Amino acid sequence: MGSGRKEMQVRDARTASLDIMFKARSVAVIGASSDAGKIGGIPVVLMKRHFQGTVIPINPNRATIAGLDCAPDIASVSPPPDLAIIALPVTAVEAAVGDCLAAGVKSIALFTAGFGEIDAAGLAAQERIADRCRAAGVRLLGPNSLGFIGFHSGLYATFSAALDNVWPKPGNVGIASQSGAVGTYIMALAAEAGIGFSHFVATGNEADIDVADCIAWMAADPQTSVIVVYLEGSRDGARLKRALAAAAAANKPVIAIKPGSTEAGLAAVKSHTGMLAGSKRVFDAVLNSYGARPAESIEEAVDLAYACAQGKFPASPDAAIITPSGGVGIMLADAADRAGLVLPPFPASAQADIKKLVPLASTGNPLDTTAQVANDFRLFGSVIDIAAGQTTVPTLVIFMSHMGKTPGVVDLLRPTLIDVATRYKDRLMTLVTRATPEFRNEMSALGYLVFEDPTRAIRAIGGLRHFAAHFALADEPAVTTTTVDRQLLEDAASSAPAAARLLKQWGLPDLPVRSAETEDEAVRVAKELGYPVVLKIDSPDIQHKTEVGGVDLDIADETRLRAAWKTMMATVAERAPRARLIGVTLSPMLKGGVETIIGTQNDVDFGPVVMFGLGGVLTEALQDVVFAPAPVSLGAARRMIDALRARPVLDGWRGAEPSDIDALASAIASLAAVAAANADDIESIEINPFVALPKSGVALDALVQMRARKD
Amino acid sequence: MGSGRKEMQVRDARTASLDIMFKARSVAVIGASSDAGKIGGIPVVLMKRHFQGTVIPINPNRATIAGLDCAPDIASVSPPPDLAIIALPVTAVEAAVGDCLAAGVKSIALFTAGFGEIDAAGLAAQERIADRCRAAGVRLLGPNSLGFIGFHSGLYATFSAALDNVWPKPGNVGIASQSGAVGTYIMALAAEAGIGFSHFVATGNEADIDVADCIAWMAADPQTSVIVVYLEGSRDGARLKRALAAAAAANKPVIAIKPGSTEAGLAAVKSHTGMLAGSKRVFDAVLNSYGARPAESIEEAVDLAYACAQGKFPASPDAAIITPSGGVGIMLADAADRAGLVLPPFPASAQADIKKLVPLASTGNPLDTTAQVANDFRLFGSVIDIAAGQTTVPTLVIFMSHMGKTPGVVDLLRPTLIDVATRYKDRLMTLVTRATPEFRNEMSALGYLVFEDPTRAIRAIGGLRHFAAHFALADEPAVTTTTVDRQLLEDAASSAPAAARLLKQWGLPDLPVRSAETEDEAVRVAKELGYPVVLKIDSPDIQHKTEVGGVDLDIADETRLRAAWKTMMATVAERAPRARLIGVTLSPMLKGGVETIIGTQNDVDFGPVVMFGLGGVLTEALQDVVFAPAPVSLGAARRMIDALRARPVLDGWRGAEPSDIDALASAIASLAAVAAANADDIESIEINPFVALPKSGVALDALVQMRARKD
Repeated sequence: MGSGRKEMQVRDARTASLDIMFKARSVAVIGASSDAGKIGGIPVVLMKRHFQGTVIPINPNRATIAGLDCAPDIASVSPPPDLAIIALPVTAVEAAVGDCLAAGVKSIALFTAGFGEIDAAGLAAQERIADRCRAAGVRLLGPNSLGFIGFHSGLYATFSAALDNVWPKPGNVGIASQSGAVGTYIMALAAEAGIGFSHFVATGNEADIDVADCIAWMAADPQTSVIVVYLEGSRDGARLKRALAAAAAANKPVIAIKPGSTEAGLAAVKSHTGMLAGSKRVFDAVLNSYGARPAESIEEAVDLAYACAQGKFPASPDAAIITPSGGVGIMLADAADRAGLVLPPFPASAQADIKKLVPLASTGNPLDTTAQVANDFRLFGSVIDIAAGQTTVPTLVIFMSHMGKTPGVVDLLRPTLIDVATRYKDRLMTLVTRATPEFRNEMSALGYLVFEDPTRAIRAIGGLRHFAAHFALADEPAVTTTTVDRQLLEDAASSAPAAARLLKQWGLPDLPVRSAETEDEAVRVAKELGYPVVLKIDSPDIQHKTEVGGVDLDIADETRLRAAWKTMMATVAERAPRARLIGVTLSPMLKGGVETIIGTQNDVDFGPVVMFGLGGVLTEALQDVVFAPAPVSLGAARRMIDALRARPVLDGWRGAEPSDIDALASAIASLAAVAAANADDIESIEINPFVALPKSGVALDALVQMRARKD
Repeated sequence: MGSGRKEMQVRDARTASLDIMFKARSVAVIGASSDAGKIGGIPVVLMKRHFQGTVIPINPNRATIAGLDCAPDIASVSPPPDLAIIALPVTAVEAAVGDCLAAGVKSIALFTAGFGEIDAAGLAAQERIADRCRAAGVRLLGPNSLGFIGFHSGLYATFSAALDNVWPKPGNVGIASQSGAVGTYIMALAAEAGIGFSHFVATGNEADIDVADCIAWMAADPQTSVIVVYLEGSRDGARLKRALAAAAAANKPVIAIKPGSTEAGLAAVKSHTGMLAGSKRVFDAVLNSYGARPAESIEEAVDLAYACAQGKFPASPDAAIITPSGGVGIMLADAADRAGLVLPPFPASAQADIKKLVPLASTGNPLDTTAQVANDFRLFGSVIDIAAGQTTVPTLVIFMSHMGKTPGVVDLLRPTLIDVATRYKDRLMTLVTRATPEFRNEMSALGYLVFEDPTRAIRAIGGLRHFAAHFALADEPAVTTTTVDRQLLEDAASSAPAAARLLKQWGLPDLPVRSAETEDEAVRVAKELGYPVVLKIDSPDIQHKTEVGGVDLDIADETRLRAAWKTMMATVAERAPRARLIGVTLSPMLKGGVETIIGTQNDVDFGPVVMFGLGGVLTEALQDVVFAPAPVSLGAARRMIDALRARPVLDGWRGAEPSDIDALASAIASLAAVAAANADDIESIEINPFVALPKSGVALDALVQMRARKD
């Protein structure tokens, strides 16, 4: 979803200022140790061996470390280095930062722990350090950071012990992680899966540089094609949104592990729909709106990064499956369905050609060659060749069972696999097979994805297709509107008729709502509106009218209306004895249509968000509600509707007429625009219900809640 | 769910008759080949090397094969072998089977393909063969079977090529698969994960022996503790149910991969609720009712089998997580929540002890030691020791990051890990770590589960807990009832008042339903019932009354009733012009409560099933419906209710009173009993709605559909 995604992205100064760190040509290590296992020793040893730039260990007590000449202090290093790593005890850090700034160091990576992650004093210290760096125009990584790695230049500005037992190769996948442990765990598993990396950054306490910075920087980094992030929360929602937008504009997939929830850090959202919400959902909605793909496990993130690194994003959901096992074919088809892939039939000519080669083949899709190919595996190669020749199907999945572990069989298939990879370079071709590392590497180098588990393979392809669909989105301007005077909003927050007037002004269709202060006036108004009518209590103190007996529907005539008035006044007075009762509102009773809820909230992290769901308790119980950061385009609003699990209900369930999706999308986008334009004043709006009708939609009730004034 | 699960299981004759095959002491291979790569050569070579019994290659043209003396024909083998493998060309098979039976062979494994999987002639041939075997009391595996393996005795009655590149060790996991390719793929991946096997069976075309037979046999097999099955469908639903019941009674977990759907093979279920149903759901319900655990991928099945093989099933959902990384802790906590695990706080004394060792530790659960333990990994060991000492928490999950790949660290931790494993043998202890194969094997041998991916580890533990909960279920008798005369059912199928009478007879509470054939009679009846009333058309030809305008609710008085009568008669006449209209039914209008649907269907595979869901279009759109094979116990009915995603609605949503779950469970169990007792006559029943009330529940409408008579 989101909007303006494709607009020209110019790197802002904040992003550009990271170059000096992540592309450093000279690095000083303050607290350099001759113990190669220590936090101040590891980076010296690693960079001595691999860094293409200059490394200067700073240690007043030693002449050399790891064969490199030491400087006694940072002031002695001339010219000042692009990067200073600080690996000192916590008590020495502030002085060292001062020395760095005085010496003209251009960026600082602060490994030392014992700051904001420990206590308030540590937090204060880290903020002092960050403020001083900021004032000096020096970017700061950490504190409590495992550091970062530039794999292409050998810039191992890290003390990670993971590098003891895995050595990731340079490549095009970037990792940015708020947790050093999770980040290196991802990196290690990904490296073992054959993935190569551009950059790795562990952002630690994020006193300055955060994951959003890293995303923005990698979005413009030519070495990075795929961005994997682990983030528990956001320091600055607006910055994260801009970073994600930059990655999307660069057509770089962002794979996000976002565990847990940050509810505790959120102002409680009090409105009725808040019950459904939660920062995790808003966070997910933000990621989703910029096309980032959440991964529920490290394995899922690694699989998808591996697939993305090949750079092939299928242009349509069509896929062809070839298998010598009908059973695996069914499993792959199941998985494909869950992943949103489509399995079109093979063209008749291709089916005929395959039948000629393998008479027992079942030429549906999945195409089951049967075990007949085990008699001559070259037949299997020929079938692959025919299937790959289909120009309209961008994705081919080939189950090879144990073949990839059987060198004799690999030898028979290799010529075809090389030939097919060469001739159909644009095709996404996946081999699902038990494989020797050699076969896996050989095929990966040819451009094949190689997976062992059928379901994991298809899940990763589904992820590629997700990115392809997102990259293909046309630039869609968000629906916007202007700010409303606060007094008008306050009126709407306390009076239903005022809210109704505002809805109309905002372009949200409504039904007439009329006020009445006495029973007789209600009877007069109802006669003018025409029976049947809906009666609601009118009170500035009552938000959830139903629960205090303040709503009566489908009142057919005056007798019922008078009875309803009396019952309502008595019930409300009993259940909400302190509420000031102004009278009632009346509106025509609407029959048919689908009740929906459209709402907005003002998220403390991400600002205004819009939400949409169907009405009724089941929607709440099943949490079938969709969020998006506001404002949204009409296309994004439509995708919100489509993302609802209960979407079929709007298509005309059980013979009803389909709902007017355009009207619904327009209402969602309009309300989102209002929330975005009035974010300083509006805490939340809830239209409940907005009734989706076959050729329109109407807002039946609106609840506006104001933010406290900033002053 | 299910019932009578724990009753004494006696092996039936059909199951016992498999012993001679799966425990064969002498095997003849008909079609034995001296080519060690051929279907008739592979089993000879494998068994020559590994089988503890006697192998007799049958080949009239050779004196020896693989160093074993050949017999010229099966008749020459004396005494006749326990098992004859037939690996001949398809044209020679029927004669060979005849020879085997004549020679007194005790069981046959038929490898040859080209039978029922090819065409009708092949199917007829396979049925002839199966009939002849059956008549002779000889069990038949296949045709088109990859064979079977008894790992403990080296009985490699298979031609699987998977054994070329993986050699599974003997162990306690049994595999039965309808697909040889899927079965061997599972076996190979599982073997690589360190799992050992008791038996492997590929059932091929299942002319006789099917997966249900294998489950039943493994349920009683002392070498098998865990059963993994791949099944696309069931040959005999009743037999599968018995087999699953036997496995459950033996407390043996059944892990089932059940891909695809068999809708095509099902009689279309025409009733309204059928829209929600489908054989896949019924199949899943059958598996679920006997505690079998579905796996969506091979990987998931392998992970769970690996975990089950250790034989520890946690007695409560409580788990403790220890991690040196807060980030991984959050991921593990997320996964634990999804897997139904609970993370109770550590006792204060344990927290204090840990704080003493690791002052920076955050002693919640997950317990985050922080990277402080990297300074002295023995501290991490001490923390593990303290955590393992908690007697009330059966499950411990320890994230060890890269430690398992770092021999120096392993050496520091080994003493504690051995000590803890020895002292707390009943504890389920899981290490999540990158691991060398040596460390993984060493720890697995000590009783630890070792996983690399945190999410996969927790998912597997969730599976163990699923089995533990199921094993712990008390034996619960199903609610049963007696058969109803078909004429009474037919009356109910065509008349609402008759249906209402039957509901009452079945113990399902209802509201009074009265008939009226004229407008004036309706007015009289309504006055007797008391307004408001519900008016419904009464016609033997109309099933979905709402859709033809045949339902009017909440009629408050005579005026509205007369208007409603006229409108209804006109609308129904227009929309259902051919329907015979008897008149209307009237009942009191019920307000409040939660509308549910209770239904039954007669599944062609599994017989009567009962379904339950909430009323309303959302339930259908979201497919939030639960099935179980009928009859069910009251406990099983309760678990059906609990399995609903919308379950919170019944707990008193938005301040409503909670529904009477006992009344609901009783209604479900009663209707299931009726469907089971009248399975020959009733196709489906639907009570829609059954209104769940705070202290009772009432059936407002019932629709009975009859099965065609068998004659």
